[in-house]
Amino acid sequence: MSPGTEFAPSCPIPITQYPRVLMAHGGGGKLMRDLLEKMFFSALGPAPAEGRHDSAVLEFPAGRLAFTTDSYVVRPIIFPGGDIGSMAVHGTVNDLAMSGARPLWLSVAFILEEGLPMETLWRLVCSLRDAAARCGVRIVTGDTKVVDKGNGDGLFINTAGIGVVEHSLTIAPASVRAGDAVLINGDLGRHGMAIMSVREGLEFQGRIESDSAPVSGLVQKLLAAGVEIHCLRDLTRGGLASALNEIAEDSQLRIMVDEKSVPVREDVHAACELLGLDPFQVACEGRFAAFIPAKDADRALALMRAGECGAGSVRIGSVEDVQPPLVVLKSAIGATRILDMPAGEQLPRIC
Amino acid sequence: MSPGTEFAPSCPIPITQYPRVLMAHGGGGKLMRDLLEKMFFSALGPAPAEGRHDSAVLEFPAGRLAFTTDSYVVRPIIFPGGDIGSMAVHGTVNDLAMSGARPLWLSVAFILEEGLPMETLWRLVCSLRDAAARCGVRIVTGDTKVVDKGNGDGLFINTAGIGVVEHSLTIAPASVRAGDAVLINGDLGRHGMAIMSVREGLEFQGRIESDSAPVSGLVQKLLAAGVEIHCLRDLTRGGLASALNEIAEDSQLRIMVDEKSVPVREDVHAACELLGLDPFQVACEGRFAAFIPAKDADRALALMRAGECGAGSVRIGSVEDVQPPLVVLKSAIGATRILDMPAGEQLPRIC
Repeated sequence: MSPGTEFAPSCPIPITQYPRVLMAHGGGGKLMRDLLEKMFFSALGPAPAEGRHDSAVLEFPAGRLAFTTDSYVVRPIIFPGGDIGSMAVHGTVNDLAMSGARPLWLSVAFILEEGLPMETLWRLVCSLRDAAARCGVRIVTGDTKVVDKGNGDGLFINTAGIGVVEHSLTIAPASVRAGDAVLINGDLGRHGMAIMSVREGLEFQGRIESDSAPVSGLVQKLLAAGVEIHCLRDLTRGGLASALNEIAEDSQLRIMVDEKSVPVREDVHAACELLGLDPFQVACEGRFAAFIPAKDADRALALMRAGECGAGSVRIGSVEDVQPPLVVLKSAIGATRILDMPAGEQLPRIC
Repeated sequence: MSPGTEFAPSCPIPITQYPRVLMAHGGGGKLMRDLLEKMFFSALGPAPAEGRHDSAVLEFPAGRLAFTTDSYVVRPIIFPGGDIGSMAVHGTVNDLAMSGARPLWLSVAFILEEGLPMETLWRLVCSLRDAAARCGVRIVTGDTKVVDKGNGDGLFINTAGIGVVEHSLTIAPASVRAGDAVLINGDLGRHGMAIMSVREGLEFQGRIESDSAPVSGLVQKLLAAGVEIHCLRDLTRGGLASALNEIAEDSQLRIMVDEKSVPVREDVHAACELLGLDPFQVACEGRFAAFIPAKDADRALALMRAGECGAGSVRIGSVEDVQPPLVVLKSAIGATRILDMPAGEQLPRIC
């Protein structure tokens, strides 16, 4: 897809003829080819000059590449602040960013349920296309399957991503050191509460928007400035609690968090209370924790605050060489409590 | 996963405690971590030394890489000659092979339906693991989602694959030339009929086994011998009919097929007749068409016949510079008919 190309705003599949996805749209025949050509290729990028093929073949410089995958099953598929299409781009781009990789290419695989309105599919494909353009990634290969009505749920999207690692750091839990500062790039819990507000029909419905956004630009900025990043982790399923507990366990170090430094919006707090949820355990889709040597922390914070999706960046704690490895919250009055990993699922189908 | 490692044959998730997949197994908390560590990491490969992370970071030589994705929604999930686990490896490995790439790495993403028996999942994970080992590919990253009962269908698997392109050919429809020989690596239609026989409870049930198999070794063999491959295409959804029609259209050339040269087993033929299907339109999962310059055709055939999954290789036709671009079948008595692209889906959820 060349930049600046404009697509018709209306669904390219003749709606009068095929207002809904049929099993035949996944059957490998003419109807499927129509769906691919008129909808997917036209929106997401043309077939390569050498013809449609089973794989994309791409030039890659020598070195390290990052590779990740995520399936998206969020309900509802369109929610305040986003939809499953843009989320399928942001989530995978963010996973690549967590290795400090510059995202280059995505694959997109749709599992469509028979009967899905064609207009809905088109809207989500456009959203996915626009998100990819914003993130500077190219959709280079894909797949479409149709399952019979009652055996799916509208649509599921899988994206896999490839990025290039242009730094020489090992950005991983094993690189975390005692003394590291823990930074996050904004307030917590908005994605989870945006979803729940719609799903539960709560009165704050629509007032809380998802934080779904790409953070790769922010990470690239830190790397370009020579910040020695030790570890990055996005705060998705299980929220801050899962992310920090995983890193504490993998690094065998204790993470101390200053509870009042963690930004949670008032309305998000209220929504969490209403539903009996801990905002520290609620999923975000545009938030990450960065483990940075203390000496670099202020500089990193300044860079993050000046970047896209980073205005609310704060330092929330630090790493200590104390056993056993735990995540410990310090309250305003100095009391401490353990921030545990959530046991199971609080918020099903949040991503 | 190191070669030779042996895993316990029994499901590692305590069956008495969790005989079925719960929503909490996808929630990002302790139960999900248990599922990942005890089942997926133990079977599919350990977390890297630097700790579990959002992406895999991998060394790559300079040059071209192939990237592909496929979701697998086949029903039943276990069928004569294979299952959705091995198929999710073979299918994606074969897509990479169709670019002449040597498959290196796979991602695996599961969408599990709440209530899936844990033993079934374990069986399929083991099958996937064993197939990857046979194909020489490493599973390096993954994802797990759980959807609520009634909104999925047991499980769907997505795999994306990366391979390295070590040749300098452009293996693609645009490289097809008039005079090329068309070869296939064996008999057609067994995968589709294996699935249908179980699904329809036909009397030949179980006697027809799927042809699901990796063909990357065969392609690597041709490349190593210096065969100038013009195009490769696997004969999956839509079978030989779809594959050849797509290539005829993309290359703007006519493909002539000698009907009686195309091997179809007697029992597959009978099963197709019973169901009113054309074996040329039925999906295979271990078969491909190769477009090879006529001068290399005999040598390529000999190499293919001596290789794994290639014993039944035959030359079925050739490419002609005749307009319009079509696929034309020549019968034994010299009559010709057009082999059309299947219009829709004949065999839903075949892959």
